[in-house]
Amino acid sequence: MTQPVLVELWRGDIVESFHRGALAVVDTAGVVLRQGGDIERPVYARSAVKGLQALPLVASGAADRFGLTHEELALACASHGGQPEHVAAAASMLAKAGLDADVLECGVHWPSNEQASRALAASGEAPCALHNNCSGKHSGFACLGALMAGDADRARGLLRGYVEPDHVVMREIGASLESATGVRLADAPRATDGCSIPTFGFPLRALAHAFARFGTGVRFTPERARAAGRLREAVAAAPLMVAGKGRLDTRLMTHFGARVFCKVGAEGVYCAALPELGLGIALKMDDGNNARAAEVAVVALIESLLALDDVDRAFVSPLRDVELRNWNGRLVGRLAAAADFVRSAR
Amino acid sequence: MTQPVLVELWRGDIVESFHRGALAVVDTAGVVLRQGGDIERPVYARSAVKGLQALPLVASGAADRFGLTHEELALACASHGGQPEHVAAAASMLAKAGLDADVLECGVHWPSNEQASRALAASGEAPCALHNNCSGKHSGFACLGALMAGDADRARGLLRGYVEPDHVVMREIGASLESATGVRLADAPRATDGCSIPTFGFPLRALAHAFARFGTGVRFTPERARAAGRLREAVAAAPLMVAGKGRLDTRLMTHFGARVFCKVGAEGVYCAALPELGLGIALKMDDGNNARAAEVAVVALIESLLALDDVDRAFVSPLRDVELRNWNGRLVGRLAAAADFVRSAR
Repeated sequence: MTQPVLVELWRGDIVESFHRGALAVVDTAGVVLRQGGDIERPVYARSAVKGLQALPLVASGAADRFGLTHEELALACASHGGQPEHVAAAASMLAKAGLDADVLECGVHWPSNEQASRALAASGEAPCALHNNCSGKHSGFACLGALMAGDADRARGLLRGYVEPDHVVMREIGASLESATGVRLADAPRATDGCSIPTFGFPLRALAHAFARFGTGVRFTPERARAAGRLREAVAAAPLMVAGKGRLDTRLMTHFGARVFCKVGAEGVYCAALPELGLGIALKMDDGNNARAAEVAVVALIESLLALDDVDRAFVSPLRDVELRNWNGRLVGRLAAAADFVRSAR
Repeated sequence: MTQPVLVELWRGDIVESFHRGALAVVDTAGVVLRQGGDIERPVYARSAVKGLQALPLVASGAADRFGLTHEELALACASHGGQPEHVAAAASMLAKAGLDADVLECGVHWPSNEQASRALAASGEAPCALHNNCSGKHSGFACLGALMAGDADRARGLLRGYVEPDHVVMREIGASLESATGVRLADAPRATDGCSIPTFGFPLRALAHAFARFGTGVRFTPERARAAGRLREAVAAAPLMVAGKGRLDTRLMTHFGARVFCKVGAEGVYCAALPELGLGIALKMDDGNNARAAEVAVVALIESLLALDDVDRAFVSPLRDVELRNWNGRLVGRLAAAADFVRSAR
C-alpha cells in the first residue's frame, strides 16, 4: 500500500523532498474518526509511549512513596536533551529511592541537546547514563523496582537485568501497554529499543485509542485513570522536562498546557492525546529518519482538531509551515504539511 | 509517480521504516543503463556536485598558480566534518591566495563531526567559517576569484557577494555545471543552498551523465578533462579530506582509490563516477532526511556494477547491509538495500 504524502519540503519553487506516512485519530470507544494510509500495520511505538510506560510508576504508589515532583514525573515520560536540569532530575529520582546512576541499564550517550553536549565537553566531563535521553524513564523503572523490593539494597538486586522482557519490572510495563492499547503483547512484533528495553509493534489505530484513553481515563481502572491524570498534570506543569529547549513537545505543551499531551518517538512516530475532545492521535512517517516530518504532521492534526483562538493559530501556524533558513539566516525553503493532507484534515 | 522502495530498516522481524527514491546509471554517451523511479524530475544537486563545481578552480589555472595540494583540491570537493585537518587545509588554500577566512560567505556552523565539535568547545573556542562543511569549496571559489582579480587586494573586492548567482565567480561555476550536465541553467529550477550559493534542479539522468563524463573526461574540453582527472586523483590520494573520519565517501575512496569518485549531497542525493566502466550514478531518496538511505543505495549500486574481488565484497557488504546497534552495543536491527532493488541491480 502506498501511503499518502503528509509533509513536503519546498526549496525555491519546487518540492525537494517529501514524506509519506500513516495516521489515525481515534476516540475513547475505539472509533476511527480520521485515517490516512495503513493504520493496521504494526508500528514500533518507541519512545512515543513513555507516558503509558510511566503509568505503573504512579499507579503502584511508587511516585507517592518517593515523593516524586511534577518535574520528575514529566522526566519519566521524557525523551530529554540531557540538559543539566534533566540530569539533575533523574539523579534526584534515583536518590529518593536510595539508588544512583549505577543501576541504570539504558546505556550512555552524549546529550542530544547540542549546547548541553558542548558545555559538558567544555567542562572536561564525560557523559553518563543520566545524560541518556531515556534516563528519566529508566529512573522511573528503578523507583518502581525499589517499591517492589522494599528497600534500596534489595532493589539493587531486583533491578539487575530490568530491561529484559521477562523481568518483573518490565512485565509491569508491558501489562500497562497491553491494557492501554488492547493488543496482546504475545501477538505483537517485538524488538529492542535504543535504551535496551523491548519495543512492541502496535497498529496506529490501537496506539491512537490508547492515547484517547490516556487523555481521559475512560476505560482505565480508577488507579490507572488517576495515574494518567497525574502524569498529564505533571507534563503540563513542567513541559521543559519532557523534551527540552526548543523541542516541539516542550513548545506545544508550554503553549497548550493540559489541552495537549504529546510525545515524539524514534523513526517518525508521534502520539498525542487531546483530553477535551476525548481523542487520541498516532502517526508514523514511512521513512522515520528523524522527527522533522512527524512534527509538522502532528501539528497539522492538532491544529485541525482543537478549537483555537487567534493566539493559538499564530502559535501553531509556523510549526505546521516551517521556514527553513541556511547558515547565513537566509530563507531557503519551507517544510509544510501537504495541501491535500491539510484539506482532508479540515 | 510512486517511486520504488530502495532501502529498508529492519528492527526485530519486521520492517520499521523504508525509503523510496529514484536512481539512474548512465554512460558517457548519455545512454541510461539502469533506472528506478522518475529520473526526469528536477532534483537539487546540492553538495553532490562539488566536484563539478571545483573544475574551474583547476581548469582556470588557479590551482597551479597557488600550488594547491591533493589535500586542498580534495577539500574543494568536500562536505567535510570540520576536523582540525579540514580547517587547516581551508586556511592554507586562502593563505596561498593572500586571503583569509574573512572573505568566506558560507556562514558559520559547529563542526559536523561530533568529536571535532566537542573538542572545539572544550578548547573554549567558537567555530568560524572555516568549520563550515563547505569551506573547502568556498576557499576554492576564493582562489578562482583571486586568479581573476590578479592580486589579493583586488581579490577581496572582487569576491564580495561571490555567492550570488550573477557574480563573475558564480557564473563560472554555473557554466561548469551547465556544460557537464548538458542542462541550460536558465531552464532549471534554482534555489539557495545551505552555504548560500545557488543550487539547481537537474534530472537524475543528466546528473549521472555528468558524472560519467567527469569520471572519464569524455566529451569535456581538454582543459576540463585534465581538471577532472586531477580532482579525481586528489580525492583518491586524500580521501579523508572529502568527508572525514568514518564517513562513507572517505571510506569508499580509501578502499577503492581512483576506481570510485563519489559524493553525498544534502536531502538524500548521491552522485558517483566509476571511471573504469565509463559510468555515472545519480540517486535521490524522496524523503531526503539524512544520508543513511542514500548511502546504502549508492553502495548497493557500486557493488552491483564494479568487478569486485573477495576483499572488496567483504568491505562493501556491511555498508550495504548495515548492522544497527543501540547505546549498549546490542544488535537491534539492519538498514539494508531492499531485496527487489538488489535483485534488479544484478
